[in-house]
Amino acid sequence: MENGKVRVCFYPEDRCIEVDKGENVLRAAMKADVHINASCGGEGYCGKCRVIVEKGDVKQKLQVKLSEEEIKRGYVLACSATLESDADIRVPIESQIGDKSALTRRPPIPLKGYTLSAKDWAERLPQWELNPPTTKFHLVLDKPTLEDNLSDAERIKRELSRLAGLKDVVVDFPMLQVLPGLIRAASFDVTVTVLDRGQELRAVRIEKSDTSQGQAAIAVDLGTTTVSTQLVDLQTGKVIAEASDYNGQISFGEDIISRIIYSTRSTGLAKLQSAAVNTIWNLIQQMVEQTNMEYCNITHLCISGNTTMTHLLLGIDPRYIRVDPYIPVAQYFPWIKASNIGIRIASGVYMRCTPGVASYVGGDIVAGVLASGMFNSEKITLYIDIGTNGEMALGNKDWLISCSCSAGPAFEGAGVKHGMRATRGAIEQVRINEVTLEPMIITVGNKRPIGICGSGLIDALAELFLTGILDERGKIKTELSETNPRVRQGDWGGEYVLAWADESGTSRDIVITDPDIDNLMRAKAAIYAGINILLEEVGMTVDMVEEILIAGAFGRYLEIDKAIIIGLLPDVDTERIKFVGNGSLLGSYLMALSKNLIAEADNIANMMTYLELSTNNKFMDQYVSALFLPHTHIDDFPSVKLRLEEARETARLGREAGGEGA
Amino acid sequence: MENGKVRVCFYPEDRCIEVDKGENVLRAAMKADVHINASCGGEGYCGKCRVIVEKGDVKQKLQVKLSEEEIKRGYVLACSATLESDADIRVPIESQIGDKSALTRRPPIPLKGYTLSAKDWAERLPQWELNPPTTKFHLVLDKPTLEDNLSDAERIKRELSRLAGLKDVVVDFPMLQVLPGLIRAASFDVTVTVLDRGQELRAVRIEKSDTSQGQAAIAVDLGTTTVSTQLVDLQTGKVIAEASDYNGQISFGEDIISRIIYSTRSTGLAKLQSAAVNTIWNLIQQMVEQTNMEYCNITHLCISGNTTMTHLLLGIDPRYIRVDPYIPVAQYFPWIKASNIGIRIASGVYMRCTPGVASYVGGDIVAGVLASGMFNSEKITLYIDIGTNGEMALGNKDWLISCSCSAGPAFEGAGVKHGMRATRGAIEQVRINEVTLEPMIITVGNKRPIGICGSGLIDALAELFLTGILDERGKIKTELSETNPRVRQGDWGGEYVLAWADESGTSRDIVITDPDIDNLMRAKAAIYAGINILLEEVGMTVDMVEEILIAGAFGRYLEIDKAIIIGLLPDVDTERIKFVGNGSLLGSYLMALSKNLIAEADNIANMMTYLELSTNNKFMDQYVSALFLPHTHIDDFPSVKLRLEEARETARLGREAGGEGA
Repeated sequence: MENGKVRVCFYPEDRCIEVDKGENVLRAAMKADVHINASCGGEGYCGKCRVIVEKGDVKQKLQVKLSEEEIKRGYVLACSATLESDADIRVPIESQIGDKSALTRRPPIPLKGYTLSAKDWAERLPQWELNPPTTKFHLVLDKPTLEDNLSDAERIKRELSRLAGLKDVVVDFPMLQVLPGLIRAASFDVTVTVLDRGQELRAVRIEKSDTSQGQAAIAVDLGTTTVSTQLVDLQTGKVIAEASDYNGQISFGEDIISRIIYSTRSTGLAKLQSAAVNTIWNLIQQMVEQTNMEYCNITHLCISGNTTMTHLLLGIDPRYIRVDPYIPVAQYFPWIKASNIGIRIASGVYMRCTPGVASYVGGDIVAGVLASGMFNSEKITLYIDIGTNGEMALGNKDWLISCSCSAGPAFEGAGVKHGMRATRGAIEQVRINEVTLEPMIITVGNKRPIGICGSGLIDALAELFLTGILDERGKIKTELSETNPRVRQGDWGGEYVLAWADESGTSRDIVITDPDIDNLMRAKAAIYAGINILLEEVGMTVDMVEEILIAGAFGRYLEIDKAIIIGLLPDVDTERIKFVGNGSLLGSYLMALSKNLIAEADNIANMMTYLELSTNNKFMDQYVSALFLPHTHIDDFPSVKLRLEEARETARLGREAGGEGA
Repeated sequence: MENGKVRVCFYPEDRCIEVDKGENVLRAAMKADVHINASCGGEGYCGKCRVIVEKGDVKQKLQVKLSEEEIKRGYVLACSATLESDADIRVPIESQIGDKSALTRRPPIPLKGYTLSAKDWAERLPQWELNPPTTKFHLVLDKPTLEDNLSDAERIKRELSRLAGLKDVVVDFPMLQVLPGLIRAASFDVTVTVLDRGQELRAVRIEKSDTSQGQAAIAVDLGTTTVSTQLVDLQTGKVIAEASDYNGQISFGEDIISRIIYSTRSTGLAKLQSAAVNTIWNLIQQMVEQTNMEYCNITHLCISGNTTMTHLLLGIDPRYIRVDPYIPVAQYFPWIKASNIGIRIASGVYMRCTPGVASYVGGDIVAGVLASGMFNSEKITLYIDIGTNGEMALGNKDWLISCSCSAGPAFEGAGVKHGMRATRGAIEQVRINEVTLEPMIITVGNKRPIGICGSGLIDALAELFLTGILDERGKIKTELSETNPRVRQGDWGGEYVLAWADESGTSRDIVITDPDIDNLMRAKAAIYAGINILLEEVGMTVDMVEEILIAGAFGRYLEIDKAIIIGLLPDVDTERIKFVGNGSLLGSYLMALSKNLIAEADNIANMMTYLELSTNNKFMDQYVSALFLPHTHIDDFPSVKLRLEEARETARLGREAGGEGA
């Protein structure tokens, strides 16, 4: 237990788990499925989450709301205390609010799936090797003489041939323009970067003296909402800096469709291109500033984005993506100079956009499928990237089929009254006590809640449903308002109060409303319908899928059991569900390091079939059936059916016990 | 004789030749080696060149200086009369000035060498085929549907594969940017241009509907002085327009060295680039205006120039070309977009510069060697391009060696008091009567003489030497001034008057002076020394050279016997000497039509050895020996030795006869 892990036991539940040393007590309780009443997000403001440390070293960060007497008795506020050693923690009745006996009945399913590790990737991608598309060669050239009077360019080519056996290298035109001055200023001791474009080796850049030791690439996931980047050391293959930010295009429209519409304005396309370029460039600057790397160490960029984002980045008109029959301009993009699109980097730095499959299955999915290794495997795998669109690919090494279903931006917090992105103060986890209907919330950064993000919304939806606050059609049972103030009639239908105004960071009640839930229902129904239609297309059932990989930044916080409860994911053994993290970024990273994988990405884009859903009647049927909790066909969700029954029973028992306990 | 040829006989010489119908009588006499006193260039101004038409249809263009009586008697002015049928012409004694009996002794060698014909090229280049690097494909694409939803780019690639079996075509980035709008405006009926870059097929351009019928390329000889271009129809392989002009860079310096120096000024390189680009663009405009072709029909450019010109055109710093050890930046140049260097043509039009061998043996020579076919042949061939530099290549299919000797610009009229380029009014041919020392001149355009161009200078030098006006060291024997007003002492040494002020277009005497002759001597000595040093390097003698090919616009007007007399060319059987014309332009033209030859040009540049002469002591020895007329070693020039003896005898006889005739 010394290496960073501690064991904590919660009483009276007598439930023990292992967590990282330094873990927040409230988060540990959430993991252990122990309910502690908490609704201020962790600023110690509401003071409700008092627990007693019976054993162990628990560090209290904030001192508010506890008297000296309480501190002596071992009280801490769970939201702002950390576990520094193994510990026993008792949750007193006032923080617990509910019937422990009932709570223990919850099935011990993993709250979060297994996230694939670096070792997993290595096994999944045997063709990976550290062999980037660009290589720097330090060349100490023979100085020209009357006898050895080769041109500067041929001198370089001769040395590349001698040193590395490279043949037929083409010297890039802009390099010729700097060559004569530089090569002499460097006394013929230079470093030349060679780009392997697949069909051709090209010397793209020359620098003075030996710069071959510092070589880095930029991996980019160009998302509609978020742009994530990595600075990758090409010698070690390690990520040496990461940075992400909102896509600067957001101010021209939240989603793909509004961006495409904006792009058709007179200077719209140029503005959108420039916004994406600036976002990427700012992130590159941030990363360079964090490290020893310099701009001149960067030799190439690998960028994966959905088809629209890739078009906009390259200044290619995307307007036909959104009109029937939904045709992109291109799937494959040549290596181009990054400076050609306005990235303020040396002109010899080339970039490559990962190829896509169709208008709504882009390079981000191809990159993810690449990273997943599913194209290498016999195993039937389902890859799902949940964002504004739910994009998914099904298959194995012999075939791949993909589709995209418009989930809407609800999971990203848009179209939801207090929705927000997963930034500070966003409610990211929610538990609701079956008996009291009181919530337990955790916010990003342990700040007072100011809204709710995607994972919080899924949690909330599942909890509201399990606790019977929602009916099967996703409507809040406003009749509960008679017995519980958290449920009430709002302007637009029922609503549930997640945090009261005096606990929130906005001094307003944080609520989730019927219209919010409608949006979430549509989103989850679209994704579930997409999965089913892919399976139907290839004549398979979900049981035949050996692995489900969840990608997307969002996936990192998704709780699998909650996703199954609301019918977003099929009711399968949760062992079969794994998290890829940001598959698009991971694929970009892997391609930046290995030119073999760049070629594989082309193969994947080429072999993958695309199923257009927007006009598919079967999809509409599937979608309508999925607009229930968990689904019209409850028998497809046996574990949820069971759990619902248990929850109803718990609530009944709890109400009886609670009646006594109150 | 009907098909454009007429036979003309001159009396009293009784010498008959065949000439083109419509030929000028004076020029016909020059060809027949019949002396007619003529010094006004052909404007009928001096009226000296009277001849009598005894038979045939001879059209008199100008009526000056002839009385009605004379006209009745059949007099015409030879300079301004044309042969419209077979004719007998008598040269009266006053126009003849000299002893016919002596003149007839002149050996009947061909005045001009054989210029290689199209048929010759075909035999010399079996690998030539009409298969240009660019091809236009008319594609009637299937319109996209939900079922057939390939991207625009993939749709084009699929059709290129179906129609022409092209695989792995890369769609050029700028084409992607226009693709979606254009392809729909054209209702998916488009023409796509594919460029074969050797290592890669690239779709570079898309146009509406079927434009595959009009396809043209531009061939360019980018000379230091003159830029010559052709507009080539890629369907027929024919040249459909030609245009040439001075290189606009002339205003920044006449020769390569002064241009390189200018290029080192702050904006010098950019100005020189822009001047060359503008020259080429203006010529393209002229050609397009002459024909049915439009700018959009042009699909590529093939440009051959010397190494400095190529560097300047591409904006590549040439400064190290002129300093020991004389290193160019590059020999090979990638296909680049013509618009990248400022040629105002569609962005999908690519250009290629012919590779060079070294700083002073450039793409123009490689193009010429390519066109000559000598790289295919067993025959040992010597290729010489005479210009400011004398560049030459020796070898056959197994080996090629080249060198460049700085001839100075004398052959281009620079450094010569009344030197000029071969434009209107330039004296291009000269004969001097051995007895009277009176000249017979022909000017370009039959205008009054305003100066003398390269071929005129070589003629003049040979004639001055043969007639004994010059000694072996090239000095004018000013003692002749005592008996002949044409020879006199000028400010800078001796001079000979080619045309008197009242006959000239400048109202000044047109003369050739000792310093002029010095410059010509240096030029011819450099070239002859270059030839000998190449032969020496490979251990050969001139007898082993089976063919000598003379290239350069200049070569078109060069008279071989005169070039041998002055010791510019070795004294070989004149049958072995042939004219290539503008080898650089011819090579560019052939490459524009045939991608095989583009690859061959690379091979030639690669296999050719370069011999640097600037620091070669053996070259200096050869050069000094060649600073005589015809050469220090007169025995190397047996035909010249013989002819000199004959000329001396003719002069002697003539003076005796002239004494009688006068």
